[in-house]
Amino acid sequence: MASKAVLIYGGKGALGSTLVKFFKEKGFATTSIDFFENDTADDNILLKSDLGFEDQANAVKQALEGKSGLKVDAIVCVAGGWAGGSLKSKDFIKNANLMMQQSVWSSYIAASLAPHFLRENGLLVLTGAQPALSSTPGMIGYGVAKAAVHHLTKSAGAEKGGLPEGAKSLAILPVTLDTPMNRKFMTPDGSWTPLDDVASILYNWTSSPESSPPSGSLVQLITKDGKTETKIE
Amino acid sequence: MASKAVLIYGGKGALGSTLVKFFKEKGFATTSIDFFENDTADDNILLKSDLGFEDQANAVKQALEGKSGLKVDAIVCVAGGWAGGSLKSKDFIKNANLMMQQSVWSSYIAASLAPHFLRENGLLVLTGAQPALSSTPGMIGYGVAKAAVHHLTKSAGAEKGGLPEGAKSLAILPVTLDTPMNRKFMTPDGSWTPLDDVASILYNWTSSPESSPPSGSLVQLITKDGKTETKIE
Repeated sequence: MASKAVLIYGGKGALGSTLVKFFKEKGFATTSIDFFENDTADDNILLKSDLGFEDQANAVKQALEGKSGLKVDAIVCVAGGWAGGSLKSKDFIKNANLMMQQSVWSSYIAASLAPHFLRENGLLVLTGAQPALSSTPGMIGYGVAKAAVHHLTKSAGAEKGGLPEGAKSLAILPVTLDTPMNRKFMTPDGSWTPLDDVASILYNWTSSPESSPPSGSLVQLITKDGKTETKIE
Repeated sequence: MASKAVLIYGGKGALGSTLVKFFKEKGFATTSIDFFENDTADDNILLKSDLGFEDQANAVKQALEGKSGLKVDAIVCVAGGWAGGSLKSKDFIKNANLMMQQSVWSSYIAASLAPHFLRENGLLVLTGAQPALSSTPGMIGYGVAKAAVHHLTKSAGAEKGGLPEGAKSLAILPVTLDTPMNRKFMTPDGSWTPLDDVASILYNWTSSPESSPPSGSLVQLITKDGKTETKIE
């Protein structure tokens, strides 16, 4: 059997870096896809900030095709960002655009790789958001982008969505992740989800995909008193 | 009281043209926003195909600011398109991008106009799709874009979403509209929604907004034996 491998889209971000380190320590070959190199990853594919959506997708696919016969057990997209604002925000359209680029483009590109580079019975994991399960009037661009990711997860994971045989599509829906960026702007409490908890959940799913949630599931990550549980929406 | 007025985004398309004609016959001043001029409309704002999302939004806003003191009873976005394909489609990313531009950009731009040009108690109406209420594995880009529009509708329509006082945000969710384009590719049956039915529903909502569905509603248009009824999701 070929060695275990994962692709981490957004592998240089806070959560992405944690995932690369965690999976590598568990013996997985790790490829990071990001605008910046992750020195811990076994391999890096660098995104280019001047490329549009289609060109970026093509560039990533071509770079991966260069790694002859690459097949991974999981493609995980943890790229994303956050911006607030209602219709009245002077940056409403600008932030709507940014959220689409950061969350929707990245999730679409990760999903587009699955038919080519994901193993049978593998996992495609995208990052949604628990608040986007209902309306998000104070952060419209963010909520719309995450709702789009939720629909992508459900559709890719449905029968005839285009995944390899036996593969699943899942979304993780955190509330607040315990990242340095979030600590910079807010005071953490016991409801923040530690990044290692996310890594541990994704590692368990990848190691025994038969015990992971049904394909297409939106999986809320609910942390209480520092303890994280999953809840299928 | 100022005369009644509507903005139709996508006013030269099949449904948009029907709306312009219908509202005009009912005595509304009609402004069409489209890539092509609608000769029936009282006024036209022309989109430019070479502009990106933010520039297009700015151009439309500036053009409307040129009409001193313009306030409308309804902003209706019926721009959109359709494309099929699962993850495996060779045009997956291309069509995902196209669907975002045709349905999401247009809906966002229409929504961004509401705080500036919609009257109090007015209506913002966007166009979703009934099939996007569940997974759409055979037309992923289309479903994702429409799911994004649904979330935008709910969020703009929620308290503090940024609409003028008393205004509502609603989405219409057709299954198949009876358009020339759809007749070109499919055989119509009694489940197709006549464009005049849509116009009539939107006219009734605009004329008596107090009797229209609650703000944020996704309103399915269900046609049986040629008769159209609304059903709030």
